[in-house]
Amino acid sequence: MMAARAPVVSVIGSATCTEDEAGLAEAVGGLLAARGATLVCGGRGGVMEAACRGAIEAGGTTIGILPGADYGDGNPFLSIAIPTGLGQARNVLVVLAGEAAIAIGGGYGTLSEIGLALKHGRPVIGLQSWTASDGGGRPAELTMASSAEEAVELAFQRRKRREN
Amino acid sequence: MMAARAPVVSVIGSATCTEDEAGLAEAVGGLLAARGATLVCGGRGGVMEAACRGAIEAGGTTIGILPGADYGDGNPFLSIAIPTGLGQARNVLVVLAGEAAIAIGGGYGTLSEIGLALKHGRPVIGLQSWTASDGGGRPAELTMASSAEEAVELAFQRRKRREN
Amino acid sequence: MMAARAPVVSVIGSATCTEDEAGLAEAVGGLLAARGATLVCGGRGGVMEAACRGAIEAGGTTIGILPGADYGDGNPFLSIAIPTGLGQARNVLVVLAGEAAIAIGGGYGTLSEIGLALKHGRPVIGLQSWTASDGGGRPAELTMASSAEEAVELAFQRRKRREN
Amino acid sequence: MMAARAPVVSVIGSATCTEDEAGLAEAVGGLLAARGATLVCGGRGGVMEAACRGAIEAGGTTIGILPGADYGDGNPFLSIAIPTGLGQARNVLVVLAGEAAIAIGGGYGTLSEIGLALKHGRPVIGLQSWTASDGGGRPAELTMASSAEEAVELAFQRRKRREN
Repeated sequence: MMAARAPVVSVIGSATCTEDEAGLAEAVGGLLAARGATLVCGGRGGVMEAACRGAIEAGGTTIGILPGADYGDGNPFLSIAIPTGLGQARNVLVVLAGEAAIAIGGGYGTLSEIGLALKHGRPVIGLQSWTASDGGGRPAELTMASSAEEAVELAFQRRKRREN
Repeated sequence: MMAARAPVVSVIGSATCTEDEAGLAEAVGGLLAARGATLVCGGRGGVMEAACRGAIEAGGTTIGILPGADYGDGNPFLSIAIPTGLGQARNVLVVLAGEAAIAIGGGYGTLSEIGLALKHGRPVIGLQSWTASDGGGRPAELTMASSAEEAVELAFQRRKRREN
Repeated sequence: MMAARAPVVSVIGSATCTEDEAGLAEAVGGLLAARGATLVCGGRGGVMEAACRGAIEAGGTTIGILPGADYGDGNPFLSIAIPTGLGQARNVLVVLAGEAAIAIGGGYGTLSEIGLALKHGRPVIGLQSWTASDGGGRPAELTMASSAEEAVELAFQRRKRREN
Repeated sequence: MMAARAPVVSVIGSATCTEDEAGLAEAVGGLLAARGATLVCGGRGGVMEAACRGAIEAGGTTIGILPGADYGDGNPFLSIAIPTGLGQARNVLVVLAGEAAIAIGGGYGTLSEIGLALKHGRPVIGLQSWTASDGGGRPAELTMASSAEEAVELAFQRRKRREN
């Protein structure tokens, strides 16, 4: 008997956010749970907490990969808290753990997570989030969604399925 | 509604091990699952795989915090794989994620995890594992167990309960 | 007697780059050395190697914070190699070590370093590098330079001086 | 022209230490500097600070790989400060950066560094420091020295020379 593995999707965004972003995040969390996906995030407030609340209220599972070394850093809607003590170096873990990432709003930490996700071949779906162009004017391979439903649908379509 | 949180216990040991160690690890995994604890480990073979197999066969949940960046590094008995790409720097995450650690056999990586667990105030229960004394001859605060049952019982008694 | 501390500037960019980018990087490295600054980078090829070559040829000091665990990963122009085994999680160390960062060209790893530098309050000077705007259309606080000379001058003007 | 590379030796020990340990550390630092070696350590107080003071007073170079994200965490005797924000996960970097490690006294963080050094094939020389035996009673491959002179001599004899 091998372990059953659910799909895993990362949700990235800031620890402080607008009400509009929180609403999007909560909807995304609920839709991921409804599809049986595990939600992984940085485990803190703002977009992360709203997404986790949406997932837990829909009966889902949430994982928070925390910047600090203490469980107490996490929001109350984490099924599993992974304290790291790594600070912002934990950002790469947040995106590696998922098969795709949904970025909602976000500041510079989120921008770093977008870069790290794309560096590791994880598709990134943006909701009211960053756009970027490199030195030659080529846009980063971000897919923009205009609703929580579209973001989750795109994340499922494009996620890099795990071999194991 | 907050998320329900299970107790979490770390199991540490080598990716290669003796049959005797594998038997102990499988028993520890099964007993942790029977008590409703989530098992966290480094996600690889040997002691880690045997403990995860025991937990999954008993209906438990397992988390593997992998040294590599790929899901494929993990053993087949992981409910949740957290690829990190951090190499041995991921050892600290394995012990921080648990409220107590059970060390079974083990090489130098396990010795480092014992040091990191004690540094962070996580109790360590040893099964056929390392002993150590500091420069003044004071022994490290390891509790030795002589069976899988005793190890799991001690881990539950001494675990640092999480505030959140 | 306290240790004398030189200014430290991070140079970020890809392990593969155009000849034009390599030329800019080599010039930046030389100018940093001429001003007595220590150059810190990710220690690999492309932009990193060209910048280090420029610095070493001008008598400067270079530090490479390597993604792998082996010294051998580094380019030949490193005064000091810091192997990490952290993979892309080492990106945050590259930008934290400097008082300012100069980004030359670059791919997704560089984009993540720009985000991490700005998150930690390190000014970023761009040379033919990324531009980005957040979900509200506000541009990231990047300062664009049009020559190696201007980039180094701006890095010195804006660098966050260390208190210690 | 390639960069000249000095030998690099790690000094590990606690941020709080006895006067005796501080004396040993200062002597080790001075002897390493006299032999042209760069000293790398965790950058903080106690054994680390004493070793750095000894090295700087003898005209040597010191590198501190700090647990925090701020330069200000470091002791005043660092030629180069590498803030990491990684907490105890930075321990592996301290031992990877050196070709050998000298352990002086030390607590659980030092015990973890000894495990990590041996895991990565770095020889460890102990001065009034940890001893350890695995589950089969085999001692860890630590070499005990009885003076600063002997410790430095042994570190030079056994250091893993870098290929690059």
